Amino acid sequence: MPSERDFLRRLQSVARRGCPDLQLGIGDDAALITPRPGRHLVVMSDALVEDVHFRRRYVPAAAIGHKALAVNLSDCAAMGATPRFCLLSLALPPSAQPLAEDIVQGLLALADRVQVSLVGGDTTASPQSMFVDVCLMGDIAPGCAVTRAGARPDDYLFVSGTLGAAAAALQALEQGAAPPDAASEARFLFPEPRLELGQHLAAHGLATAMLDISDGLSLDLARLCEASQVGAVLEAAALPIALAAVAISPDQTAAHRLALDGGEDYELLFTVSPQQAATVAALSGTAAVGGVSLTCIGRITAGHDITLHMDGEIRPLPARGHDHFVRPGGSGTGTAATWA
Amino acid sequence: MPSERDFLRRLQSVARRGCPDLQLGIGDDAALITPRPGRHLVVMSDALVEDVHFRRRYVPAAAIGHKALAVNLSDCAAMGATPRFCLLSLALPPSAQPLAEDIVQGLLALADRVQVSLVGGDTTASPQSMFVDVCLMGDIAPGCAVTRAGARPDDYLFVSGTLGAAAAALQALEQGAAPPDAASEARFLFPEPRLELGQHLAAHGLATAMLDISDGLSLDLARLCEASQVGAVLEAAALPIALAAVAISPDQTAAHRLALDGGEDYELLFTVSPQQAATVAALSGTAAVGGVSLTCIGRITAGHDITLHMDGEIRPLPARGHDHFVRPGGSGTGTAATWA
Repeated sequence: MPSERDFLRRLQSVARRGCPDLQLGIGDDAALITPRPGRHLVVMSDALVEDVHFRRRYVPAAAIGHKALAVNLSDCAAMGATPRFCLLSLALPPSAQPLAEDIVQGLLALADRVQVSLVGGDTTASPQSMFVDVCLMGDIAPGCAVTRAGARPDDYLFVSGTLGAAAAALQALEQGAAPPDAASEARFLFPEPRLELGQHLAAHGLATAMLDISDGLSLDLARLCEASQVGAVLEAAALPIALAAVAISPDQTAAHRLALDGGEDYELLFTVSPQQAATVAALSGTAAVGGVSLTCIGRITAGHDITLHMDGEIRPLPARGHDHFVRPGGSGTGTAATWA
Repeated sequence: MPSERDFLRRLQSVARRGCPDLQLGIGDDAALITPRPGRHLVVMSDALVEDVHFRRRYVPAAAIGHKALAVNLSDCAAMGATPRFCLLSLALPPSAQPLAEDIVQGLLALADRVQVSLVGGDTTASPQSMFVDVCLMGDIAPGCAVTRAGARPDDYLFVSGTLGAAAAALQALEQGAAPPDAASEARFLFPEPRLELGQHLAAHGLATAMLDISDGLSLDLARLCEASQVGAVLEAAALPIALAAVAISPDQTAAHRLALDGGEDYELLFTVSPQQAATVAALSGTAAVGGVSLTCIGRITAGHDITLHMDGEIRPLPARGHDHFVRPGGSGTGTAATWA
């Protein structure tokens, strides 16, 4: 097990350098950065806690590091911003200290791929649980950031990728079983933030509101509707339910529940004005949005009701998701709730 | 106990608003900030973990929130930067969830005083221990940041305030006793970051190197010397040992140990060229540096030896402090090691 000093030296040697706007990185009291002129700064943080967001027995150390950054990159994507810098706070119990380097390598592998520099953070002991907190900074052109608050009645509701694969894998892993397929396991362990999609929509003014689906479509849609003061109707038949969610579910209702309430998708949910809906639909699967599929799953409505159109009926869609002020460990895991 | 949603609503209502460069605060996927033109950005994070950095039985919730921000402000002060924004990640076990609001209020009381906006973060459950991580962003004029690496042989070594009071209070509290005096308890529970001092020294180019003393003078001096590739000789008779450290110690050696190795001081340790030493000495206790006393405690030397001049002898000064990759709980608390 490395001493803290040796570990920090290793970090200094592996963290990304040569970034022209990074004046001073790991190793002093703070990092020093020259912001890109004329850009707004976008900042967020999101923590993973052992036995709340992951269990050591089925999440390898590299996936912990990957995911700690990925959940923040997903928030960054949901603003339409370009990620730039991150800090990592790592609190590890003695039994997890040998994992420190693999956790950091998992984070850095993703950071390098998306051109994010690890510029600082801290390490500390922990009595029992691992705690991995990442603070991410990005930037964006003024006026381009997409908030949750801009959805208007009649806007189309789109979601990227498929829903329920990560939740299906998690459900299996929690039961001590193998995930339905390798793809679902990868979706749960190594979620891929939809950065190109978010940036493209923001830069071209194509989304009126956007957030990432971390706690389940039904809950995150409720958050978008609340911020925008609108309602929504979802088309059950249009939901892009992942194969793994279908495979693991005893019936269609269970598969729908995984897609609607499962969480851990890290897809983008966004609204598009009727004038732009065809343009956005045509982007599905293109390189401009990172090759991800885009599916129209419903419309925004006036009022505050959120409903599901299924089997010819319109029924209320309750927002089932994680309230993070609950006893951990009881019902699998939950993602951290981001304030900003 | 509030639900997470109610808690976040409360946060949105109490966090500081009206800051002209904050475009979007708590409540979306990320906060949006306009950096002040022409300034460099300074970023850092530092976490507090229950039973590693504090114990619930003697640290009130408001002090946890205060301290989580203060330790970061102290790093910011050590760069000479102006703090601007922070994010708070809070992981609380069920038994600590009723403390959430007091923790945040403790943080906000200090944030308001130093004109820092809480712009985001997240809340989550934790299996056993409380984790409180703060990421702080500040700014500084280009070329003004003071690193650890600029000390040169013959520079004078200065420290702000007094040393050992917080360690004395902690020692008493760990033993179930009352702190030596109210001042030492306040120093431990509510450390006061030396922002005016750090900013004044940086803005006027008076310090060649600087860091804050979080893990004890001997260890933090060793860090400064390593970064600057110099040695140092400390004058034991000059050390500004706090009254509480003397009061709690059976002999002078024990009092010296508290001042040299105790940690938790959150004072600034900085080096000054011989040409500027008189200017800096004259600043002691003035409003320009926030009224804090400044004491010359030694000199920087060529080579790598760090020594203590005491009772007519020069002896090696071992860097005794916290390696944070150790089993927690054994020897009181330790502050988190900041990478950057």
